[in-house]
Amino acid sequence: MAPEDKKFMRLALRECEKGIRKGGGPFGCVIVKNGGVVGAGHNTVVNAHDCTAHAEVNALRNAGKKLKTHDLTGCVVYTTTEPCPMCFTAIHWGRVKKVFYGCTRKDASKIGFDDKHFYDILEHKARDEIAEQQICRNECVNLFKQWVKNPRHKTY
Amino acid sequence: MAPEDKKFMRLALRECEKGIRKGGGPFGCVIVKNGGVVGAGHNTVVNAHDCTAHAEVNALRNAGKKLKTHDLTGCVVYTTTEPCPMCFTAIHWGRVKKVFYGCTRKDASKIGFDDKHFYDILEHKARDEIAEQQICRNECVNLFKQWVKNPRHKTY
Repeated sequence: MAPEDKKFMRLALRECEKGIRKGGGPFGCVIVKNGGVVGAGHNTVVNAHDCTAHAEVNALRNAGKKLKTHDLTGCVVYTTTEPCPMCFTAIHWGRVKKVFYGCTRKDASKIGFDDKHFYDILEHKARDEIAEQQICRNECVNLFKQWVKNPRHKTY
Repeated sequence: MAPEDKKFMRLALRECEKGIRKGGGPFGCVIVKNGGVVGAGHNTVVNAHDCTAHAEVNALRNAGKKLKTHDLTGCVVYTTTEPCPMCFTAIHWGRVKKVFYGCTRKDASKIGFDDKHFYDILEHKARDEIAEQQICRNECVNLFKQWVKNPRHKTY
């Protein structure tokens, strides 16, 4: 860990404080590329009426907007709490390879958040309370085939 | 499965087609509450420069905006492909209890998407290519404590 890493984590802490002042969840995140901040965000779930608006998701969206790409290769994430599985996967989709975090999923459990519970469901240690059912597979797969045929199609 | 479920899945298929026409990933989603559509979305990752803009995330955001709450209890998700772990967890954060999907994570692998790979990482079947490191835990936990003391704080 370089002194710079602490500096960026402190910026994530400032983001977190901003969110707390607005009545949001106590989470902040900054995204850094080549030594400069390219995205920042705090949790806005309750105020924005958006269950996906975690600090990391907001910061990734800001970084994508600034860098004009969904591909955040070479970025580093600094987040005040271990990313939940939604944010963990969002970070993977963004092709970020390095994450610094402060609190753990267990710390988040203690103040009433389900991060650890959702990890447990994904790791098959806890029962999933959601019923999933497959329907219309053929029609859905047909659209995959249609997409593949399009020469402009982009995988990411 | 009711005939209505097929009807809603076909709306998700129309969303998917819309996305394909715009050059996006082949995924569509609608969200239904009390028999009516409250949110719809298709994948806009590449065009919106947003690694989080999956069909389900976009549809959940639209539903939250329409219903003016992050809490989507009582909603049903219809999505053309099994949600990736990001969307799976977003659906859990939204407190949705029922999901219908068409293609599987394996179908998505076949056309080049990493949904299954990210599930495998979370299930510890695949090596995580991301390095995670904990720093500044005390300062981060202090903000949790500050948040808990605020009488206006909301857990979700």
